[in-house]
Amino acid sequence: MSTAICLVSGGMDSCVTAAIARSQGLDLAFLHVAYGQLTEKRELRAFHEIADYYDVTERLCIDGGYLREIGGSALTDRSIGVPEGEVDRPGIPLTYVPFRNANLLAIATSWAEVIGGSYLYVGAVEEDSSGYPDCRKSFFAAFNEVVRLGTKLETSIEVVTPLIRMSKRDIVLCGIELQAPLDLTWSCYQAGELACGRCDSCLLRLRGFEQAGVNDPIAYKTRLGS
Amino acid sequence: MSTAICLVSGGMDSCVTAAIARSQGLDLAFLHVAYGQLTEKRELRAFHEIADYYDVTERLCIDGGYLREIGGSALTDRSIGVPEGEVDRPGIPLTYVPFRNANLLAIATSWAEVIGGSYLYVGAVEEDSSGYPDCRKSFFAAFNEVVRLGTKLETSIEVVTPLIRMSKRDIVLCGIELQAPLDLTWSCYQAGELACGRCDSCLLRLRGFEQAGVNDPIAYKTRLGS
Repeated sequence: MSTAICLVSGGMDSCVTAAIARSQGLDLAFLHVAYGQLTEKRELRAFHEIADYYDVTERLCIDGGYLREIGGSALTDRSIGVPEGEVDRPGIPLTYVPFRNANLLAIATSWAEVIGGSYLYVGAVEEDSSGYPDCRKSFFAAFNEVVRLGTKLETSIEVVTPLIRMSKRDIVLCGIELQAPLDLTWSCYQAGELACGRCDSCLLRLRGFEQAGVNDPIAYKTRLGS
Repeated sequence: MSTAICLVSGGMDSCVTAAIARSQGLDLAFLHVAYGQLTEKRELRAFHEIADYYDVTERLCIDGGYLREIGGSALTDRSIGVPEGEVDRPGIPLTYVPFRNANLLAIATSWAEVIGGSYLYVGAVEEDSSGYPDCRKSFFAAFNEVVRLGTKLETSIEVVTPLIRMSKRDIVLCGIELQAPLDLTWSCYQAGELACGRCDSCLLRLRGFEQAGVNDPIAYKTRLGS
């Protein structure tokens, strides 16, 4: 049976991505990279709870704290505030972590080459997302070429992005259809007991549930406009 | 003035690469990634000595220890011995660290995007090298495409590999011409007071000096065939 390495942040998108990989009959291995983001601990808890739900024994949690040293993002640099209510502002938001996804994919590819994983499942979303350059379909296609050229001849690893063309609404509906444990996920950019309900990530998630006509099972501190 | 981020392991190739970047009038920033390789400490010393030689103030030393956790290489997995005297054996050697160069380039690109670096200078050698897939010119060309697509529109970063088509002989001669501090470099894969003179890396280096008709300024424990 082929193994899919799922990049699981602990958020809704990566959870639904894992659900899709499982529904396709693949063995799952879960990879989590902490990189000094504000919600590091909360995300790790979500990671393990989702892994438990899917009975995933092959788990790797990586310290990518060097991304915090490099900085340049509201998610890793404490001197840059996390923006609120700016989800429709054009341009690349302050939460962009420079070239983060290439770092995550490089780590995942190294691991896949060692354990014999065939696929890297990544929950990136191009449309209805935050405008991060490293979430585009063309970026992942180019990375697949790097994987092909930069690994052993006998290695075969493919980056798969099943959500790339989905809207948040579609992701919610897909997750519900596949019985993904959306109640265990954490999407918020702010560190807190409850999701803030105001950062870009909360706003996009809430909008997705609203458009799907479904109630978000997690609790929020506040909901803008509600 | 444009800044070149030089990936400096502390070995001869990266030292000559830095010398080339300097000779082209670029500002230098030095990046070193320790990844749990046997010679981690010795390489770091070489890194700082070379940086001192070039008066480089912008230095970043990254803990990429996760590559050791992932393992799969004689350089990072203590249970796999470093091969000796096998430099001409066909195939990918046991010292291959799976997809290592993509990890290093991803880190370097993130840093370059934050500090405004224009070039990544990498001392990879395709010919006369060890057959690592992530040292091929085609791999770096593909990575440049990933950089273009995965960073901000206003970001311009190019991976440059000035040694890629050189032989070790050419690298020695180039280093001497540019007055690169080859005496400060460390190429050996084994941890020891002196370079072992028997691992692939020592053998390739010694052969390069021999073919250049120049004496290697560093000391060796033993020299095969001498």
